[in-house]
Amino acid sequence: MSDDGRFAYSGLDRVLHEKARLGILTALVTQPDGLSFTDLARLCTLTDGNLSRHLDVLAEEGLVKVTKTFAGRRPLTTCALTAAGRRRFRAYIAELEQVVRDAAAADAAATEAPTPLPRPGLAGA
Amino acid sequence: MSDDGRFAYSGLDRVLHEKARLGILTALVTQPDGLSFTDLARLCTLTDGNLSRHLDVLAEEGLVKVTKTFAGRRPLTTCALTAAGRRRFRAYIAELEQVVRDAAAADAAATEAPTPLPRPGLAGA
Repeated sequence: MSDDGRFAYSGLDRVLHEKARLGILTALVTQPDGLSFTDLARLCTLTDGNLSRHLDVLAEEGLVKVTKTFAGRRPLTTCALTAAGRRRFRAYIAELEQVVRDAAAADAAATEAPTPLPRPGLAGA
Repeated sequence: MSDDGRFAYSGLDRVLHEKARLGILTALVTQPDGLSFTDLARLCTLTDGNLSRHLDVLAEEGLVKVTKTFAGRRPLTTCALTAAGRRRFRAYIAELEQVVRDAAAADAAATEAPTPLPRPGLAGA
C-alpha cells in the first residue's frame, strides 16, 4: 500500500533524538560562539559526567566542537555547534515538526469526529 | 540563575520519546478503534518482533491495549490507545512542540543576527 512506512520517521536520527542530546543541541543552537561546559550543564540539568558522555557522542559525529582554553588562570571548556551539526540539527527538527503536525492533526480529527471507522485489519491480516 | 534547566525538557517522557514508540503512538492516535498488528508493523516499518517488544513496553505503562480476536477463522491482533495513553501522548507532544519552537526561534536568531555575544562562561566558570 502507499502508506507503508508512513509513521517510520526515519529522519529522527537517534544521535540527535536522545533526550539529553536534544536539549544540549537546542541550547547550543542559540549560541554561535558556544557555551561553557558549566553553563551547558546547568541549562540542561545534567551532571558533569553525563554531559561529558553526551558531548563525546556528539563530537565523534562531528556535530559539536569542544575547546579547552583559559579564562585568566581558570581552565575554560567551551562547546559549540559545528556547521555540519547545525545542518543535521535543522534536518532533525524538520522531521520533528512533521511528527508534531501528524499527531496534532490526527488527535484533532479523532476528537472532533469520532465516526466509527471500518474495523481495522480485515483486509490486511 | 533563572534559566537553570531551561533545556532539560523533563516532559520528554522516555517511554514515549523512543523513536519507534513515537511512530506507533502517532499511528494509533489517528485510529480510535485501533489498528491491526499487521497494519501497524507496515505503517511503522517494524518487524513483528520489534513491534511486539515496543507494544509490551507501552502496554505495561497502560498506554495501549492489545486485543486478540478472530476475523472469521483468522486470528486478529488489534492495538489501540487507551484514554490514559491519549492524555500522556498529548502532554508529550506539547513538550515536543516547545522543543521545535525553541530550536526554530534560536536558529533563526543565530542565522539572521550573527552579532558577537560576550565570551561564554567568564562569569559562570
